[in-house]
Amino acid sequence: MQYFYSKNILSNFNDSEIKVRESLMDIGFGVLTEINMKDAFKTKLDLEYRNYKILGACNPTLAYEALNNEEMIGILMPCNILIIDNDDKTTKIVFPVAKSLLDITQNQDVLNLADKVDKLLKAAFDNID
Amino acid sequence: MQYFYSKNILSNFNDSEIKVRESLMDIGFGVLTEINMKDAFKTKLDLEYRNYKILGACNPTLAYEALNNEEMIGILMPCNILIIDNDDKTTKIVFPVAKSLLDITQNQDVLNLADKVDKLLKAAFDNID
Repeated sequence: MQYFYSKNILSNFNDSEIKVRESLMDIGFGVLTEINMKDAFKTKLDLEYRNYKILGACNPTLAYEALNNEEMIGILMPCNILIIDNDDKTTKIVFPVAKSLLDITQNQDVLNLADKVDKLLKAAFDNID
Repeated sequence: MQYFYSKNILSNFNDSEIKVRESLMDIGFGVLTEINMKDAFKTKLDLEYRNYKILGACNPTLAYEALNNEEMIGILMPCNILIIDNDDKTTKIVFPVAKSLLDITQNQDVLNLADKVDKLLKAAFDNID
């Protein structure tokens, strides 16, 4: 099962991050965490890596409902969005398929919530260009 | 497939978090992200919730190898560890089964790395009491 979908946009890395954040905000998802892999690899391993950010996004209402249905679902929260520099003036935007990731819970209530999450995320994704 | 394992320890919430962080450090995992669900629900929804933290842990070397094998693996990074207050002087510690979560990639190199991650995480888990 495909666990992500992606597209390249004609926008530099920093502008793309702003677009992603705004688009997530529009669907009621806040960005709770941010990991800058390039900086992490430079600091920890002294290795060069491309611009690659992982934004952890979460809709509080849906998260609250999910936790009330499956206490351990925090293992799979938040939803990660990737922003990857193609180093050619375009940037790759990658969104998760929540249902594919949450399938492992085998909890129908959680999977119904995952459907809602996926519809919202797809709308945000389509809105980025 | 079970996607987590857990245990209750006789330790308050804050002390338990310190123990988890130290134990992760001992196996070479840094905590890159932290989500305080109690604070998030209070701030965003004005709802009361128990102490519940999600720590995002990552071993830089293994993460670097994973990304070189599967560029989109950031969707499933970092490894989340849960610290949940049982409100009875004990705290629940929850660790992920990396292999169960990464199975969706169907990438054997990634699954071999997941085995290494799981062995390290299990050692950290066993060390917490």
